[in-house]
Amino acid sequence: MSKNEKYAAEHAPIGVFDSGVGGLTVASGIEGLLPREALIYFGDTEHLPYGDKSTHAIRYYIKEIATFLAQSGCKLIVTACNSASSVLDNQLLSELPLPVIDVIDPVVEAVAGNPQLKKVGVIGTRLTIKSGVYGSKLRNMRPDIEVVERATPLLASMIEEGFHYGDVAHLVLSRYLEGMEELDALILGCTHYPLMKKTISAILGDKVQLIDAPEVVALKVKEKLTAMNQLNSTAPNPHEFFVSDLTENFEQMAQLFFGDTVKLQEHSLTEH
Amino acid sequence: MSKNEKYAAEHAPIGVFDSGVGGLTVASGIEGLLPREALIYFGDTEHLPYGDKSTHAIRYYIKEIATFLAQSGCKLIVTACNSASSVLDNQLLSELPLPVIDVIDPVVEAVAGNPQLKKVGVIGTRLTIKSGVYGSKLRNMRPDIEVVERATPLLASMIEEGFHYGDVAHLVLSRYLEGMEELDALILGCTHYPLMKKTISAILGDKVQLIDAPEVVALKVKEKLTAMNQLNSTAPNPHEFFVSDLTENFEQMAQLFFGDTVKLQEHSLTEH
Repeated sequence: MSKNEKYAAEHAPIGVFDSGVGGLTVASGIEGLLPREALIYFGDTEHLPYGDKSTHAIRYYIKEIATFLAQSGCKLIVTACNSASSVLDNQLLSELPLPVIDVIDPVVEAVAGNPQLKKVGVIGTRLTIKSGVYGSKLRNMRPDIEVVERATPLLASMIEEGFHYGDVAHLVLSRYLEGMEELDALILGCTHYPLMKKTISAILGDKVQLIDAPEVVALKVKEKLTAMNQLNSTAPNPHEFFVSDLTENFEQMAQLFFGDTVKLQEHSLTEH
Repeated sequence: MSKNEKYAAEHAPIGVFDSGVGGLTVASGIEGLLPREALIYFGDTEHLPYGDKSTHAIRYYIKEIATFLAQSGCKLIVTACNSASSVLDNQLLSELPLPVIDVIDPVVEAVAGNPQLKKVGVIGTRLTIKSGVYGSKLRNMRPDIEVVERATPLLASMIEEGFHYGDVAHLVLSRYLEGMEELDALILGCTHYPLMKKTISAILGDKVQLIDAPEVVALKVKEKLTAMNQLNSTAPNPHEFFVSDLTENFEQMAQLFFGDTVKLQEHSLTEH
């Protein structure tokens, strides 16, 4: 690689995508740890929410989005969506044009690497839980671990609609988390859920460690870029935000995380 | 029309569509009033929920679905979805291959035709309320009427996820319906909402008349088929149920309305 090529590669943005606003928690985590990296965020709002879609459909969306991010000059893709991460397999990864970091493996490694965690819960969308991906990966690395997986499908919509705190959040979460007070840790298996962390913590108490993606995934991104020798060392370009279907909500949520200067652009995946 | 042609036209099914399960309340209303009619139900689960999509995207879906229903031999289309009904205009209607009954006009006519209703509320998805369609149509027919429109975007997801009764439903609805106890009537402007009618009624009391689509739309369908001379007079063919993306939830909900014999078929709108 020439010096110029290395400069260009370093300065290339990181592509982060989700079906909607949930992945903004991960993008925000990456910005926190790696403030010199430029991000291109893609929210596939046209197909939101992924949690109710079929595996077949989601694989198709991932390929389309990865192609768009590669064409936009990204050096790395973060699938900041558990439903999307749960359908990644070697076949699909081999068809994608860029290296990929998902939001499941870094979390699984962090949990499996902590021998004090023996009984672990996972909450997520119907698709993520049905895939059993956390349970099978955890048991694979730590055969002694006990895993309790539970679908909590309304939470993502509640967060998209602003019901992520207060008594409604408390009531729905109390219902969903029943019996989980005895766990050593709970994995928040959806990138929306960090926005409900306080309420979850209030319900489950201090003894249950809450584990979510933003921090561990940001560390993984740093590790990967270091290995690729493409960690950016200078001031970043501005972040860019795309959605497949322009809506007001998304812009408000993105501004909440990244400030008022965020301007959404539309990029449709289908030709119509 | 020859006798044979009339026989075939009579026996043709009615096409009913929604983004998901909500339209089943309308399909069920039509079956109740017109038990001799066969139905083809299409749930566009691949693009669910419509309430968060752009007008442009929904118009495109409607054209694709209408083409599918026409090719399946339907004689009439019911857009059993308020978000879809709210984007129908003369231009779009002229491009569709079949006559269309929406779920807004019959409700507006029923309300406007009752001079005792002077202060009327409307609840619906963000898209339906933003379109202002109920308010403008009502004021057009009855300039003296006062209309209060309010978006209640979480309700459809709550119903899709089984939170349509009990204390969560009561709490969320109490929040959304605050100050609506003084209305003469409330239009349930989303085809999902009839499933929450009991809780809404418990919150608002007997003085607020609740008006929803299933019954008035079924009457409109009967009127239209009579005018077209295509009301079926013999035993119907079995109903058929299609979705654009196969999920378990939908089958369970369809069986709740139409019995255990319901078998879902998949028909994707996009080629992939």
